[in-house]
Amino acid sequence: MDYTTQTSVRADFDDVVETTIGALEDEEFGVLSDIDLRATFAAKLDEDFRQYRILGACNPSLAHEGLEEDSELGALLPCNVVVYEGDGGAVVVSAVDAAALVGITDDPALESIGTEVRDRFERVLATVDESFDR
Amino acid sequence: MDYTTQTSVRADFDDVVETTIGALEDEEFGVLSDIDLRATFAAKLDEDFRQYRILGACNPSLAHEGLEEDSELGALLPCNVVVYEGDGGAVVVSAVDAAALVGITDDPALESIGTEVRDRFERVLATVDESFDR
Repeated sequence: MDYTTQTSVRADFDDVVETTIGALEDEEFGVLSDIDLRATFAAKLDEDFRQYRILGACNPSLAHEGLEEDSELGALLPCNVVVYEGDGGAVVVSAVDAAALVGITDDPALESIGTEVRDRFERVLATVDESFDR
Repeated sequence: MDYTTQTSVRADFDDVVETTIGALEDEEFGVLSDIDLRATFAAKLDEDFRQYRILGACNPSLAHEGLEEDSELGALLPCNVVVYEGDGGAVVVSAVDAAALVGITDDPALESIGTEVRDRFERVLATVDESFDR
């Protein structure tokens, strides 16, 4: 299953991260976690990994609505947008398909929230796309 | 689908969080993100929510192995263990079913990693369970 939607651009890695965070904020997502996997793997495994950031994005209103329906839903939150160095020098921005993610709950009442997050993430990727050369 | 495994105990909330983090460390998970949803909802929505922490747990070796197989996998990482105030005063500790989570990738090569994380999370819950009254 395609469980992510992605785009790739040619630009400075940190600029892409910054633009992605700004685009998330425009869609009313706060970045509640920001994990630098390269740093983690360097520290814990002494491995030299590609640049790889995991941005945990949360729209408070949608998260709150989902948690009122299902108090376990936090196990799937926040929804991630990752930014990493792709092969050949491009920077990949990839958003989890929140509808697929929420699908594992098998709760129809959560479907519309998953779809709403997916739609917003698609607009975030479109903004990233428009901000840089491909 | 049951997408989490849980236990609930009668103890001080912060003690349960601390014990959970220790049990995760014993299973070689680092807590890469620690989100306080109550604080987030208070700040962003002015809502008074139950105590609710989302611990993002990552076993660096398993994460690295998974990412070598599928560079998009970061969209599903880290795997969460949540601690929250349940109804009636118990504290619930709930771990995402990593096998179900990784299942949305439809990649058989990742199955064993999902199962390994699920097994370790089950031991974490057992440790929490043994550490407190029910």
